Amino acid sequence: MGRYPAGSPGWRDKVTGQANYGADFSLPGMITGRVLRSPHAHARIVSIDTTEAGKLAGVRAVVTAADFPDLPSEVVAGGESPVNYRYISCNAIARDKVLYEGHAVAAVAAISAGVAEQALKLIRVEYEVLPHVIDVRDAMRDDAPLLHDNLYTEGVDPKPTKPSNIAKRTEFLLGDPAAGFAESEIILERSYTTQPVHQGYIEPHACVASVAADGMTTVWSSSQGQFMVREFCAKLLKIADSDIRVLPAEIGGGFGGKTTVYLEPLAIALSRKSGRPVKMVMSREEVFKASGPTSGGVLQVKLGARRDGTLVAAECELAYQAGAFPGSPAIPGCMTAFACYDIPNARTVGYDVVSNRPKCAAYRAPGAPMAAFAVESALDELALELGMDPVELRLKNAAKEGTRALYGPKMPVIGFVETLEAARAHAHYNTPLKANQGRGIASGFWFNIGGQSSAAVHINEDGTAEVVTGNPDIGGSRASMAIMAAEVLGIDYAKVKPLIGDTASVGYCFLTGGSRVTFATGKAVVEAANDVVQQLRARAAKIWKCEVDEVIWKDGVAHPAQGQTDTRTQLSLAEIAASAARTGGPISGKASLNVGGAGPGFGTHLCDVEVDPETGRVTVLRYTVIQDVGRAIHPGYVEGQMQGGAAQGIGWALNEEYVYDDQGRLQNSGFLDYRMPVASDLPMIDAVLVEVPNPAHPFGVRGVGEVPIVPPLAAVANAVARASGVRVNDLPISPPRLLAALMK
Amino acid sequence: MGRYPAGSPGWRDKVTGQANYGADFSLPGMITGRVLRSPHAHARIVSIDTTEAGKLAGVRAVVTAADFPDLPSEVVAGGESPVNYRYISCNAIARDKVLYEGHAVAAVAAISAGVAEQALKLIRVEYEVLPHVIDVRDAMRDDAPLLHDNLYTEGVDPKPTKPSNIAKRTEFLLGDPAAGFAESEIILERSYTTQPVHQGYIEPHACVASVAADGMTTVWSSSQGQFMVREFCAKLLKIADSDIRVLPAEIGGGFGGKTTVYLEPLAIALSRKSGRPVKMVMSREEVFKASGPTSGGVLQVKLGARRDGTLVAAECELAYQAGAFPGSPAIPGCMTAFACYDIPNARTVGYDVVSNRPKCAAYRAPGAPMAAFAVESALDELALELGMDPVELRLKNAAKEGTRALYGPKMPVIGFVETLEAARAHAHYNTPLKANQGRGIASGFWFNIGGQSSAAVHINEDGTAEVVTGNPDIGGSRASMAIMAAEVLGIDYAKVKPLIGDTASVGYCFLTGGSRVTFATGKAVVEAANDVVQQLRARAAKIWKCEVDEVIWKDGVAHPAQGQTDTRTQLSLAEIAASAARTGGPISGKASLNVGGAGPGFGTHLCDVEVDPETGRVTVLRYTVIQDVGRAIHPGYVEGQMQGGAAQGIGWALNEEYVYDDQGRLQNSGFLDYRMPVASDLPMIDAVLVEVPNPAHPFGVRGVGEVPIVPPLAAVANAVARASGVRVNDLPISPPRLLAALMK
Repeated sequence: MGRYPAGSPGWRDKVTGQANYGADFSLPGMITGRVLRSPHAHARIVSIDTTEAGKLAGVRAVVTAADFPDLPSEVVAGGESPVNYRYISCNAIARDKVLYEGHAVAAVAAISAGVAEQALKLIRVEYEVLPHVIDVRDAMRDDAPLLHDNLYTEGVDPKPTKPSNIAKRTEFLLGDPAAGFAESEIILERSYTTQPVHQGYIEPHACVASVAADGMTTVWSSSQGQFMVREFCAKLLKIADSDIRVLPAEIGGGFGGKTTVYLEPLAIALSRKSGRPVKMVMSREEVFKASGPTSGGVLQVKLGARRDGTLVAAECELAYQAGAFPGSPAIPGCMTAFACYDIPNARTVGYDVVSNRPKCAAYRAPGAPMAAFAVESALDELALELGMDPVELRLKNAAKEGTRALYGPKMPVIGFVETLEAARAHAHYNTPLKANQGRGIASGFWFNIGGQSSAAVHINEDGTAEVVTGNPDIGGSRASMAIMAAEVLGIDYAKVKPLIGDTASVGYCFLTGGSRVTFATGKAVVEAANDVVQQLRARAAKIWKCEVDEVIWKDGVAHPAQGQTDTRTQLSLAEIAASAARTGGPISGKASLNVGGAGPGFGTHLCDVEVDPETGRVTVLRYTVIQDVGRAIHPGYVEGQMQGGAAQGIGWALNEEYVYDDQGRLQNSGFLDYRMPVASDLPMIDAVLVEVPNPAHPFGVRGVGEVPIVPPLAAVANAVARASGVRVNDLPISPPRLLAALMK
Repeated sequence: MGRYPAGSPGWRDKVTGQANYGADFSLPGMITGRVLRSPHAHARIVSIDTTEAGKLAGVRAVVTAADFPDLPSEVVAGGESPVNYRYISCNAIARDKVLYEGHAVAAVAAISAGVAEQALKLIRVEYEVLPHVIDVRDAMRDDAPLLHDNLYTEGVDPKPTKPSNIAKRTEFLLGDPAAGFAESEIILERSYTTQPVHQGYIEPHACVASVAADGMTTVWSSSQGQFMVREFCAKLLKIADSDIRVLPAEIGGGFGGKTTVYLEPLAIALSRKSGRPVKMVMSREEVFKASGPTSGGVLQVKLGARRDGTLVAAECELAYQAGAFPGSPAIPGCMTAFACYDIPNARTVGYDVVSNRPKCAAYRAPGAPMAAFAVESALDELALELGMDPVELRLKNAAKEGTRALYGPKMPVIGFVETLEAARAHAHYNTPLKANQGRGIASGFWFNIGGQSSAAVHINEDGTAEVVTGNPDIGGSRASMAIMAAEVLGIDYAKVKPLIGDTASVGYCFLTGGSRVTFATGKAVVEAANDVVQQLRARAAKIWKCEVDEVIWKDGVAHPAQGQTDTRTQLSLAEIAASAARTGGPISGKASLNVGGAGPGFGTHLCDVEVDPETGRVTVLRYTVIQDVGRAIHPGYVEGQMQGGAAQGIGWALNEEYVYDDQGRLQNSGFLDYRMPVASDLPMIDAVLVEVPNPAHPFGVRGVGEVPIVPPLAAVANAVARASGVRVNDLPISPPRLLAALMK
């Protein structure tokens, strides 16, 4: 499908900033909301007095947790991952306690940002400051300050009698690891740590909420799912789904971090109280202090193998920071850790640990990159110890169709071996290195998901088409939707316009995440387009006065079926569209599905670095991402996903971290101090698309967006280790840390 | 269906002005557009020089007709009434000639309204002023100034060889009128005139247009049809349908006058040229000078009857002002004139006449009120001459099911007789009058139409529902849509939220007009809701592991079908919705139809007036609207339609008119001088709902919005004639005119 233009509809507007993002909506009478945030990492809220703030001229509303329903703790909904609405509510606005610096305590709406800021200063909050804990290992200690008095570790036997910061223990087991290690000829055991990293989307969280006189609530916001925003706000504010309409803004990056709500419930509460539309926009400092990031983790890996490289046993124990409320990606960490390999005896144990940091949010392949960092680093050491080529070691143990995964299922058709073979054959892998240079290789896995999606395809009178779905386009999915619809309809891509509907005008779509959109929503688009084709055939049959099955649809044209002796000429989609009123009315197709059969994704990355032995600075010289992409609907955007994931992973590996002072206050809440890679930091990242079509999708699609962030942490670390001879198992491998290691 | 709340969703916001109308949208970087309008009634544009205007600091774009495609004159599209895109284009911005005072000549977009206004003054237009003609009779004269050099009267034989202001002659014939008149025992012949009147919507035309860098065009506007705006703009600017997305604003009144475009094409052209979103809003003066009104007309009626009141023959000749471009409602005038009656021999002849006035637009039952004014006035005189009760005269001749209408079809099930019987039985008709008081009666007919409509019904996870259509809600149609969906689904009305989708997110809907929405779009809603019910049954069957036809849907609950011995309990919609993900995904229904079978509407109005013999002032004392409404889905809104139509008709009868000076310039372009009735001018208008269900609609709906403006002109005139003994056949019956007649 390479005959399509480079950009998704609207790309020019995105590039020039003309697109309308969350902060770009305005309504008459609109006022501005601002949030009062906790200066403490951990404190009890003794009292909040908003009297003076409410009296300030120009202030229209002040809200605190008292304005929100006190949801029961057990409110947990299904979906891709369990959701505890009490936690989301208490994270959006603190109830009783603040659990991290930046935790929202109150919000004000006023006629200007200046007045709102002034009002924040008039809110008197009396805090009882409590001891805090930032790091995961500290938080797991018996004597650690407790964030939640009523949090008892789940998943342990017997049930604990005293509360803990460990929210949950999870274990996955396959075979008999102890026996496996006993028969291993070589055993390698290592510890690793990773730092929390922020998704780093360019656009801060922003929304406008407007509550009508009859309670009907409209929200414009930038998120990864307008239906998610609706559902969460409905639950947090006890509003019926039908009484909230959420209109999606163009989104300036999400990477998982916009799969929950922060400002929207506050803006709704403020609008409801003031009777005015309320706009709220986070500053970058607020983004860092009160949204995202993904967990930092502490991991231990143990590998047992034969001398020929066959993995016999493996164990991984990981503890992930959840931030202030339970919900780290420890479970997917456990599930993905060994998913690339066919290991008969394996166990993963995960701990979900709260500490006085912002509640973690999903971040591209949640939980997987940290686990892969540990496992793929250990594998690299194993390869070195065995004297094996690291690609060969992986090929020897690679998961294939039918491999039983530790977390349960047997692998369907997958393309991991193909990525390893492509890596081995790639010029990158066979280019000599110079002094202080090293080449790292690492692989990675992500499940990819399907789930609920809806789509509608409307045929216009002039033969053009609209394709409507309910998924924000983060990575170019509009282009993919239009391409698939154009293929099914048999018309030119330029005639198909993909659009993202609001929650009221399109059927339900689960959020944009899990690398699901081109796969699952794409399948809904294909079915909706097929629905249209059926109707087009029926219209042609009506015009020709024949049966529908005497009409064939091909290349955008109705033909009489083979064997029909008829001399009737063909009818193009445009011709049928033009006469639609006379043949039964408008032509629209739709589909609503719960899509299964997502094809798991695998990637193998090659990374060359040069280490400056005098400063510890690492320069990425060359980087190649090789990935089984199923079938690339829009190859340009697939490459973009692969490059973007690698870039984020390189930042994670080399520079990104949160720096806290001893009061638990974040010291680097800005892009100058939180060091993400920029274009000049990186080489052109080469993307190799391996296509092993997913048989469960009509076009062979498998998700592509998350896999590429899984391997880079280890690929970089392995490259650094091979370049410098020193292995750093604690991320980020920043110059001071590497220099210290080199000095040792 | 009387158990529903009084208001349509959003009514509170409409009442308080909080709703978002056409002028209420704003976008970052938005600039303001203003229109330069002709000061002349008729002139050739010799040259336009925009150089200085373009140079003014702050001006971002200037457009003239040169920026629009010069469409061929024969571009005429189908739909309810033929559309000539060249005329719409030349009306939106003058090409070569200006044809009325206020005709748009150029448009400017600038960083502020002030700068734009200043720029307009810098545009140099050289005009060659031409003689003009305002009135229809003058325009029809052989020596009249010609508006269009290439306009030859259609519908006459032989084809004319010289151009004319008469665009078209239309004739409808039934039986043999000459023979009918020959056998008549009484013949009455009268002449009438009516003035153009404006639709008088509160909200002026307003829009925002934004053209993205890739050409994708988005328009927010207040109109009677977002699809109409899309189609017209697409044609006028040669853009594909799919490249324009039109989002409907809340509409502050339309009455037919918002069924075309004025500002939208200009705003698009300005946005395209400037690269900025452009907002344009008409002033009230612009609304009067360059939009609406309906035609004024000159009518002649001839009735032939037996002494017993039986109508034997009838003729009506009418000439309607089209304004600057062809397209008056002369044809519906001819079609409706005698539609209330069963007359064996009848003829109507209509003339569509251009003159130097703003191009007329549709106005509630276009063409019918003027024809009814003439026919119903003549009938009143006939009743007086025959000494018959005017209700009895009408009953004797009333159209019934099976009556052959002059314009073609046989009447289906209709309720005209029922309205007359209700009038005769009504207390109003039997209440004595005092001195200077009179009672008028008049009837009226409107076809009502169906046409293309689409609807979608989406079930939310919490068991609430969204009903989406593509028709702006002018008269409360959202409430009707929600009621019908709630009835079909069997759930509470409060759980169903009706919404109006944009052109990209919902299937095609013809515009809101022709009293079609509750009927045709309502039928699409019913079908979409039935589609949902089918799915709900299928989901229940899946849960119960039985066949779909073993599941009955009743009162919002799935029951095992009669005879199923099963003890399975019921499943409510909310329960099925909550488990939708596990039974196949989201539940959404849709329908796209071209709906036939619109039930014609009939009404009979009673009007009591008191005439002040010293001033000629007419006071409406009592007014009763009796109408066959098919089945009133939301009775409150149906009453509102009936009251609103009557109020507009009373204004038409008594006060509204356009006053031109001898230069052809409008002198009363504001609500202070153009006198529409306000609340204090009118009594409470009583509405009597006669329900003769339309068998072609699942709920018996027939259109109700247009019929009530048809009878008032004659009802008022007949009341004045009976109160004063003086009959005024030229509207409006304003104090000076009536006083002059009384003086004679």
